Amino acid sequence: MDDSKFVYRFGKTTDGNRSYKELLGGKGANLAEMCNIGIPVPPGFTISTKTCKKTVDAGMQWPEGLADQVKEGVAHIEEEMGMKLGDKKNPLLLSVRSGAAVSMPGMMDTILNLGINDQVVEAIIQKTGNERFAYDSYRRFIDMFGDVVMGVSHEHFEEAITALKNEVEVVEDTDLTADQLKVLTDRYKAIYRKHTGHMFPEDPMEQLKFAINAVFKSWNSGRAIKYREISGITGLIGTAVNVQAMVFGNMSSECATGVCFTRNPSSGVHELYGEFLINAQGEDVVAGIRTPEPISEMEKIMPEMYDELYDYTRQLEAHYKNMQDIEFTVQEGKLFILQTRNGKRTGTAAVKIAVDLVHEGVLTTKDAISNLVNAEHIDQLLHPQFENGNVDKSDLLGKGLPASPGAAVGRVVFDSKRAEKAAEKGEMVILVRIETSPEDVGGMSSAEGILTSRGGMTSHAAVVARGWGKPCVAGCSDIIINYKTKSFTNGVTTIKEGDWISIDGTRGLIIKGQKKMRPPKLSEEYVTFMRWVAKFETMGVRANAETPEDTQLARSLGAKGVGLARTEHMFFKDDRVTAVRKMIISESEEDRREVLKSLLPYQKEDFIGIFDNMKGLPVTVRLLDPPLHEFLPSEEEEIERVAEQLDITVEQFKIKIEALKEFNPMLGHRGCRLGITYPEITEMQTRAILEAAIELKGRGVEAIPEIMIPLVGSVQEFESQREVIERTAEEVFNELNDSIPFKIGTMIEVPRAALVADEIARKADFFSFGTNDLTQMTLGYSRDDATKFIPYYLEHGLLSADPFQTIDQNGVGQLVRMGTELGHAGNPDLKVGICGEHGGDPASIEFCYELGMDYVSCSPYRVPIAHLSIAKAAIKAEEKRLLETV
Amino acid sequence: MDDSKFVYRFGKTTDGNRSYKELLGGKGANLAEMCNIGIPVPPGFTISTKTCKKTVDAGMQWPEGLADQVKEGVAHIEEEMGMKLGDKKNPLLLSVRSGAAVSMPGMMDTILNLGINDQVVEAIIQKTGNERFAYDSYRRFIDMFGDVVMGVSHEHFEEAITALKNEVEVVEDTDLTADQLKVLTDRYKAIYRKHTGHMFPEDPMEQLKFAINAVFKSWNSGRAIKYREISGITGLIGTAVNVQAMVFGNMSSECATGVCFTRNPSSGVHELYGEFLINAQGEDVVAGIRTPEPISEMEKIMPEMYDELYDYTRQLEAHYKNMQDIEFTVQEGKLFILQTRNGKRTGTAAVKIAVDLVHEGVLTTKDAISNLVNAEHIDQLLHPQFENGNVDKSDLLGKGLPASPGAAVGRVVFDSKRAEKAAEKGEMVILVRIETSPEDVGGMSSAEGILTSRGGMTSHAAVVARGWGKPCVAGCSDIIINYKTKSFTNGVTTIKEGDWISIDGTRGLIIKGQKKMRPPKLSEEYVTFMRWVAKFETMGVRANAETPEDTQLARSLGAKGVGLARTEHMFFKDDRVTAVRKMIISESEEDRREVLKSLLPYQKEDFIGIFDNMKGLPVTVRLLDPPLHEFLPSEEEEIERVAEQLDITVEQFKIKIEALKEFNPMLGHRGCRLGITYPEITEMQTRAILEAAIELKGRGVEAIPEIMIPLVGSVQEFESQREVIERTAEEVFNELNDSIPFKIGTMIEVPRAALVADEIARKADFFSFGTNDLTQMTLGYSRDDATKFIPYYLEHGLLSADPFQTIDQNGVGQLVRMGTELGHAGNPDLKVGICGEHGGDPASIEFCYELGMDYVSCSPYRVPIAHLSIAKAAIKAEEKRLLETV
Repeated sequence: MDDSKFVYRFGKTTDGNRSYKELLGGKGANLAEMCNIGIPVPPGFTISTKTCKKTVDAGMQWPEGLADQVKEGVAHIEEEMGMKLGDKKNPLLLSVRSGAAVSMPGMMDTILNLGINDQVVEAIIQKTGNERFAYDSYRRFIDMFGDVVMGVSHEHFEEAITALKNEVEVVEDTDLTADQLKVLTDRYKAIYRKHTGHMFPEDPMEQLKFAINAVFKSWNSGRAIKYREISGITGLIGTAVNVQAMVFGNMSSECATGVCFTRNPSSGVHELYGEFLINAQGEDVVAGIRTPEPISEMEKIMPEMYDELYDYTRQLEAHYKNMQDIEFTVQEGKLFILQTRNGKRTGTAAVKIAVDLVHEGVLTTKDAISNLVNAEHIDQLLHPQFENGNVDKSDLLGKGLPASPGAAVGRVVFDSKRAEKAAEKGEMVILVRIETSPEDVGGMSSAEGILTSRGGMTSHAAVVARGWGKPCVAGCSDIIINYKTKSFTNGVTTIKEGDWISIDGTRGLIIKGQKKMRPPKLSEEYVTFMRWVAKFETMGVRANAETPEDTQLARSLGAKGVGLARTEHMFFKDDRVTAVRKMIISESEEDRREVLKSLLPYQKEDFIGIFDNMKGLPVTVRLLDPPLHEFLPSEEEEIERVAEQLDITVEQFKIKIEALKEFNPMLGHRGCRLGITYPEITEMQTRAILEAAIELKGRGVEAIPEIMIPLVGSVQEFESQREVIERTAEEVFNELNDSIPFKIGTMIEVPRAALVADEIARKADFFSFGTNDLTQMTLGYSRDDATKFIPYYLEHGLLSADPFQTIDQNGVGQLVRMGTELGHAGNPDLKVGICGEHGGDPASIEFCYELGMDYVSCSPYRVPIAHLSIAKAAIKAEEKRLLETV
Repeated sequence: MDDSKFVYRFGKTTDGNRSYKELLGGKGANLAEMCNIGIPVPPGFTISTKTCKKTVDAGMQWPEGLADQVKEGVAHIEEEMGMKLGDKKNPLLLSVRSGAAVSMPGMMDTILNLGINDQVVEAIIQKTGNERFAYDSYRRFIDMFGDVVMGVSHEHFEEAITALKNEVEVVEDTDLTADQLKVLTDRYKAIYRKHTGHMFPEDPMEQLKFAINAVFKSWNSGRAIKYREISGITGLIGTAVNVQAMVFGNMSSECATGVCFTRNPSSGVHELYGEFLINAQGEDVVAGIRTPEPISEMEKIMPEMYDELYDYTRQLEAHYKNMQDIEFTVQEGKLFILQTRNGKRTGTAAVKIAVDLVHEGVLTTKDAISNLVNAEHIDQLLHPQFENGNVDKSDLLGKGLPASPGAAVGRVVFDSKRAEKAAEKGEMVILVRIETSPEDVGGMSSAEGILTSRGGMTSHAAVVARGWGKPCVAGCSDIIINYKTKSFTNGVTTIKEGDWISIDGTRGLIIKGQKKMRPPKLSEEYVTFMRWVAKFETMGVRANAETPEDTQLARSLGAKGVGLARTEHMFFKDDRVTAVRKMIISESEEDRREVLKSLLPYQKEDFIGIFDNMKGLPVTVRLLDPPLHEFLPSEEEEIERVAEQLDITVEQFKIKIEALKEFNPMLGHRGCRLGITYPEITEMQTRAILEAAIELKGRGVEAIPEIMIPLVGSVQEFESQREVIERTAEEVFNELNDSIPFKIGTMIEVPRAALVADEIARKADFFSFGTNDLTQMTLGYSRDDATKFIPYYLEHGLLSADPFQTIDQNGVGQLVRMGTELGHAGNPDLKVGICGEHGGDPASIEFCYELGMDYVSCSPYRVPIAHLSIAKAAIKAEEKRLLETV
């Protein structure tokens, strides 16, 4: 790559193509690509992402040669357009837009109509005979330039236009006359001068330089960083800058601008889907200021333009082999395509489009799996829906656009910061805003769902929510939101902050109160797609589940066993916790044994349920893990109540509670340390597991128990517990005069266990990496406390991802690798899996795949995602092998 | 080694020698050795430690051939003694004693007078004409056999003899006549029968088999395990059994028995030191039942015997090149040596004896360092003494034997269990017992000092206390102890449980209240010895210290710098903690900066103090480490008081305290995570360090600061803090127009840091392994909570040592090795040290030495121990190299 080339042209002469995405950003690369395949794109040029980095790194000093190349780029546009920047007869106007290698909707700043000044505005009037258009463009430019480039708040300009409309007594912006807009332009200039201390710059090349710098700077704006953080976007060096000839959708009613998808991004149905506005500029559609018309209306109003557009959309989809999200403008009867990109879509749509494109012969199943459907799509599909579709009229608060499907229930909040805070506390909220802006992404990400009263299907709220698979009802004009009183009303019912509502993003409904939810129905396409995925499955997927419901669900979603059944969950159930507490306060082994005897039938019953649901498949049962104090109450009242239940005095009970308290419970008396110091607990649990399995055997049901010892750090610990389990097994088998095969293995979750994995493996049948705790201990991050610094770390680049979501390959991953390799060295027959949260995270699954693990285990709803991630990893590995053999 | 050889003879024919220690135990090997060099030892044989293990492993089944070899062994003794076991004319009696490879005083069981039965007792009467002696031996044998072999409590026998003495109205055992002892023998047999359900075994070979098995079993008795645990004795396979012809110190007043040391074990003075009893059996001296005479009296009473003994002691010391602890018996004018071993000694004695033996030409300095002085000896020497040697008469409670030197202060407890519990809570206690027994070792270990009212200089309490370097006053007959009322009295003053006393083990004083202590004066021999040690020092020793007192002390004890100055200790001081708290409750960076400004002069002053004390030597300053909530009060009253100081409401303060609370503070918002999220703290501390150093430079004092960043887990964290430090340094240097060189390094204490040490090392000047935290995280043991299971683990062999005392080489050690190697790979100039508790632990220091670390850092009092440990490691390494080149 030529390091001194900063500017890449497109138009009739084009320097790039779509493979230049890293360098030119997605938008720039696609503009070049479209030019190459003959799509009518206004000419322009792209300044590369590298240039952005270079400039930012140099403290906004342009690298040598950039100024000249920008001039040449402008000359290129001037030549192709036959117009000149700043010309007094035929002036060229430019748009300046950002565009990184990964799409970030609404995140980066855009400037339109660049090149207007007091002379140019006259020239536009001369040329178009449209004084109104000229001044409308001018005042918009001052507003955008002031806001985006100079940091003059858009509000000041809004106030001015509102004041003017009041003065002249009109309602819509479009009602303002040319003269009035001219007055407005002057007022805007005054605002600009007041807030910047400078005159508005008249020199178009100076305007361009400022604008380019503003785009560069916006790369590191707070909201851009926040979006990258939330979306897990890392490794990019900067944004490209696209400078392009302006075309106008707002010159007259022969003009229009719009956005469309080649397929329905909600349902995936094969239809042209989108919205447009007559006599408007592009931002008007996206910003949700005017509610646009559906694209189908365009067929009636501008049939020729519609047909032409339709043909181009077909061509683009076929070319990109993916559903496209296209921006277009009609300027006085001429259609321009301003942008194309792979369209964001819902999970339902993603799967349907993938399956349809395969059936249409456009894609192979491998392509479909690798490129068209990702984990978030599948995740969305598995989102719950409302149990009962019917809504009582009295509960229905309003109807809006079904902007992002799925059901959500939460308490109303009107403020993004508040939404974030509530979510941190584990509260479920629905973010309700008149419209959303990039400043809201934090709150949107934290909310269960989003409701707006303004904006269309392609408004900010809708696009972002769909991208994240979060239910959203947009543009609901049935309600009026009042930020001051923190409430919204439909005229009949008023909902205040903190009240519960439910939203149905699939149908656009807003419902009072908490509606019950149920698991989703899965489409035919989903089944087809997952059948394809199954063909590439070369690693097992199990579920973390311990209730009959969860194990059933896991199996129905394709789990090939249970990788982690947490027995303590059974201890917490109301009828048992008293017995557990009795055991805890027992002073002697004898007393403990007595109480444990009473717990045995419960545990056995639980295991029978799990084994029965998982018949024929292995079930890994983890022995008691949490410290005992977790079973004791902490609230004063509760202590009194429980003390009575346990028949001891409150004082005695408090002494016991105090004695069990720990400074760092995470590193305390838990896991196998309990089983070792109280072997009678391990005995009871082993007995329950094996008695259950044998009982099922009697009924002809095959149970395959695997007993897992938690928190092992040394082979001595493992052996000590293995001995107890084997001794108990022998007792049970003798008593029942029957036996079943079973395995004994361990969690690898203490760093030391990974370091001495060979020793442990010699005695163990299987390992399961408990990467939650392993991450806590290897990084020294208490999961409960690290929220105090992890967000800061992510924001400031000290972490590239939350290590509790995606495995820290460099650190924790080294221990997992070491543990796996040493484990196999110690015992070649060792089965190895993972059962932390990471077992359901695509990047972590790929890592486990590369390590050659036997299985991953994750929560039931993540099972299909794990299947997909494995298929993707397998295809990737296959392709790599092919490349290597070539 | 012949695997079928179980029995090794000694006497005129001897199979072993002292190099057989592993196989024959220390006692057995030395008995063989003494026979080899012509010392008069009663003949006998030793059953090997291997045989013990084999038998125990086989569930007390004797291996094939053992029974025959034991018979042959008995025949060997019979031949050399000209007597026969069970013979009705000239019966042989035997002693059966345990003896492992490492001496464990009083731990293992012993049976004397074996071979007596109703016929044999008659034969003894016939032969000796001493009926009293015969029955006294018989009844002692029944008592011991019943107690040790069959588990019939000694108390039952004690009750019987006390009852009889009351009946016949005598006080001393020796006052009982032969007839009375005969009656007692019958009563003992009845007791035996009642508690065992069997007749007392008449067959001497059967008695022998029982006795041998009892010794085997005693290897795994609770108290033996406990002693090994406390003394850190591991890797032994079992005990040997020594079967030896009985000789009698209690046949008549021509008989005696005693214990002596070749040098004074308290002071090291070259003199025969010990005690003896006329007409007594060996156990009487050690058990403290009768208070024995000093050995110097023997010179008067039995001059010939004394001279003979003296010659043998000289011979033995020269032979073993070490001070010997010798047991002897005089039977009717004939001297027998029953045992010799290296004598336990105080630290003062160890150093003096080592230096004297070098000066006498017996030892080289290398031998002296490697074999004669260990870490515990040096530790003892450094024990504090009372500041003022004078004691007010009114405070002096009594005077006893100066059984183990040093001063101790604590609250009185009368029960070992209670002493253990109190020590767990961090309380200082003095264990006060009439006499101690092996059951007390736990409590003795936990106590600051030990006081007994009965027993001599070689009583259990004295021997054990001296071994551990714990102050002990023994046999203080000035006081009367009453366990029931939990008090002791000297007739004037009564001291209750919980009252403070002070004991002076060097002078044998018991003092009321808490006497002030001061650092010890170090002897000339100590200085000489440490000069020798310094010659072998090939790794640096620094101190963990941050007060002027500690840094001064450290330097005077030979520290070559400070390896860890904990800046937070300075924050806790009373006048500063309010400012620190103000900083913590600050809501903005601005407010925090304001408060930090007020802390700067304090920190600077502290650093000036440390740097000045350490002039010319490096000082590693660790930046703020603990979570901020540690600086906030937790008690209600204190919260109220502090809230007032801080001028906020109690409610606001409580909210702040609540917000800062952490579930696992150990893994929370602390270390560099604080410095990263509040860079202004790092800035202030850097500024204080560098301003202090430059100020001293102006005074001509060389300060060498090394700034250490705590809790780093990634290179990103390190770089981020390094950047803040370097930026601040530049500011300070510019402001003061001067500069000094300084280093920036990090603690390696998070497991991840060791895993990515190469990355970090590329940016760091030094590493210091913080093995306290590294152990907590690698093992997943919270130091504060692990007391709940570590003792159990040690007792049950799940841990061989407390990993917080001695580094877990297999686990944590792997990370230390990895961190060191990767660190040097990333930066060949990297300085590497250790600053956890392990920096003062001999085994851990040896490990660090082998890894090639640059220095260890430990608490000031451990500095000389570190020097010694390094010298030992260096000598060991040199010897290994020599062996390899040969």
